[in-house]
Amino acid sequence: MDANELSAIDRQLLWHPFTQSATAEPNIPIGAAKGAYLYKEDGCALLDAISSWWVNLHGHSHPHIAEAVYRQALELEHVIFAGFTHRPAAELASRLSRVVPGALQRFFFSDNGSTAVEVGLKMALQYWHNLGIPRTRILALEGSYHGDTFGAMSLSERSAFNAPFSPYLFDVEYLPAPLPGFEEASMAAIDRSISDEKVAVFVYEPLVQGAGGMRMYTPEVLDKMLARVRSSGALLLADEVMTGFYRTGRLFASDHAPANAPDIMALSKGLTGGAMALGLTLCRESIYEAFCSTRMEHTFFHGHSYTANPLACAAALASLDLTLSEQCASAVARIERNHRAFSDSLPSSAQVLNMRVQGSILALDLNLPGQGGYFHPVRKRLYPYFIERGVLLRPLGNTLYVMPPYCFSDDNLNMVYDVIHSMLEELPSWTEYGER
Amino acid sequence: MDANELSAIDRQLLWHPFTQSATAEPNIPIGAAKGAYLYKEDGCALLDAISSWWVNLHGHSHPHIAEAVYRQALELEHVIFAGFTHRPAAELASRLSRVVPGALQRFFFSDNGSTAVEVGLKMALQYWHNLGIPRTRILALEGSYHGDTFGAMSLSERSAFNAPFSPYLFDVEYLPAPLPGFEEASMAAIDRSISDEKVAVFVYEPLVQGAGGMRMYTPEVLDKMLARVRSSGALLLADEVMTGFYRTGRLFASDHAPANAPDIMALSKGLTGGAMALGLTLCRESIYEAFCSTRMEHTFFHGHSYTANPLACAAALASLDLTLSEQCASAVARIERNHRAFSDSLPSSAQVLNMRVQGSILALDLNLPGQGGYFHPVRKRLYPYFIERGVLLRPLGNTLYVMPPYCFSDDNLNMVYDVIHSMLEELPSWTEYGER
Repeated sequence: MDANELSAIDRQLLWHPFTQSATAEPNIPIGAAKGAYLYKEDGCALLDAISSWWVNLHGHSHPHIAEAVYRQALELEHVIFAGFTHRPAAELASRLSRVVPGALQRFFFSDNGSTAVEVGLKMALQYWHNLGIPRTRILALEGSYHGDTFGAMSLSERSAFNAPFSPYLFDVEYLPAPLPGFEEASMAAIDRSISDEKVAVFVYEPLVQGAGGMRMYTPEVLDKMLARVRSSGALLLADEVMTGFYRTGRLFASDHAPANAPDIMALSKGLTGGAMALGLTLCRESIYEAFCSTRMEHTFFHGHSYTANPLACAAALASLDLTLSEQCASAVARIERNHRAFSDSLPSSAQVLNMRVQGSILALDLNLPGQGGYFHPVRKRLYPYFIERGVLLRPLGNTLYVMPPYCFSDDNLNMVYDVIHSMLEELPSWTEYGER
Repeated sequence: MDANELSAIDRQLLWHPFTQSATAEPNIPIGAAKGAYLYKEDGCALLDAISSWWVNLHGHSHPHIAEAVYRQALELEHVIFAGFTHRPAAELASRLSRVVPGALQRFFFSDNGSTAVEVGLKMALQYWHNLGIPRTRILALEGSYHGDTFGAMSLSERSAFNAPFSPYLFDVEYLPAPLPGFEEASMAAIDRSISDEKVAVFVYEPLVQGAGGMRMYTPEVLDKMLARVRSSGALLLADEVMTGFYRTGRLFASDHAPANAPDIMALSKGLTGGAMALGLTLCRESIYEAFCSTRMEHTFFHGHSYTANPLACAAALASLDLTLSEQCASAVARIERNHRAFSDSLPSSAQVLNMRVQGSILALDLNLPGQGGYFHPVRKRLYPYFIERGVLLRPLGNTLYVMPPYCFSDDNLNMVYDVIHSMLEELPSWTEYGER
């Protein structure tokens, strides 16, 4: 199958996620990837500045992960995880238990971020159910995104993403996110919301709301928000699917507010270093204990066929070898320093709003006519602009962000900053965006 | 980490699916697996007669799959599938497109069976939404099980599995399954249900309702049922997560009723041969076309980070090499012949009800006091009885079933039949079940 055949089959048979094929550019065939680069079928390199949808930590096709998966595949590729256990799952839980926030010492595996969040939500709801305490309300933040299955969609702010399914989504109450300038409004809304002590769980993306537009709020405000919600007795469910594994500068975003560590935490994306799908939901032991009972109906009847798949656990263990190394922590710190230097170097400009950095994530909003957000038409021009210059950036409408793997060198980062610089210089001449 | 440490960590940190740890036996540590066997940490072999939750097709730790995954991991472990494409996904779709039922020629990837079903449901609901046709009702079958995320739970019959979450599930109308003796009642219920032409989609497990108790109905009745529903204009969504890849004797259960092939089909489990998680939802081109539009809101805004993960696609391609071989088809036929011979050999007995065979699946119900079903207490005695005799069988309450990988030899099958024979001989002396 050559590149042309591949493209023909792609057009004929494949349906791509979050893609409007009637107006999208043709999908680019990728033949290989190594380190910071994707290689097109024609051999041209593309710098992966978004870690392939925020999953890759240590570079593509990492041999340490490949070898670990291969060894595991020859030894024990999979076994049912009901009634059985295995070393890759136990080792992964054991190693993570030493570095996760707070008292999150019970581990439930699933297959992706959406399922990891739904598992956490189900733990929270059934926890109160098993205790016989009528807490049933669910709180989340405006601008939230938690995934695309029905429970995860319900937790996400209502938008064009989930509009066709709104009659099938359960009710969730959305509080204003405590973004800069809106802290007081957010706290006041929380106080009103929690007063009846009927809230089961508060679901939040700590520090950075990802798909909602890389909206950031400070550790101090995170801590304050969580303290308020916790005072009502509600459980705290942190969606760290994106923020986990150093994205925000610490191993987990929740580490920025250690006094109010979550009761439940959902992980995925970087968990395997970007190699393959795996979800993980952690919780406090007291939550698990509410499910241990001689009454069968107290059981957590949740499972997926590949729960704790040994191949995925092996990939996660290999990735963790790299993540917990001194080099990784210093690479993240170096990336953050570079981001801040770039941010400081940008001349003050009416075009750039809300330049922000949190750990390895840099984001800015382009100040342009029209309503901002995911559907801003400038995205249609920005995306190919960067691709043509050898950099994969995937703006969320008029929000541009950089979220590199930690193997990015200073040169790699400078290449990204340079194309952003060039774009900002050309931007005033872009009077229309929709042609491409 | 030795076996004792592994067990200690397991008890301390891991939460297992569908497991009540207060009453369950300790989880058995598995150190390796090969072909038909799981190997405990103490080296003892256990015959995997349920294909590790119905996923394994060609035996454990298959070298052909391991090599394919390894090669892929060194070349291109993953790339974002929005805006990009790659050979493993295109080849998998291309090869499957030649063997799948009907006109299912558009492929959307996800990560497990639950997400594959939810993707199919979302395709169906948004299809009508995009066309502006007010079809919003959802039909499913009594006894159905479609997964554990909120949308998949909503599609599944209400039961103890999903009771704590019932306030959060959307309404689905359940029709009596057309089991032997209930065909007319089922057809009459369908006729009543479809009369208003408001049904968006009918979701069904073709031929065998798996977790509901391996409840089987005939190809003729399947065909008749689907013809009735289709006559109303509703879409047909086949959940072939369990039945796919020869479980029912043909490559897909839908192949038994080719005149009424589904409009949408969900696959997972056997898709990778049992090696790792992957979901796939196929649909007719006419459904896809309803999403191709210059109106952005017609887009299918669904995706997972690891959509079309190249490692999982490579595993699926390697498994497909084996599945589409002549040997595989004849192995399935041989297993079915053995099942039927065993079924015929059992002396007529008041203890065994509804002995049934469909392809590689054999099932029977034990006729015992008390209400039948998943929670029948005999399960607590049956499960360890088989394990102690070296066979992994996992009864659904008083329903016993065998669903082996296709590498099972006649000797392997006879070992399973022998332990079932022994159990049936001892069964009359089991007056209590709950002690273990």
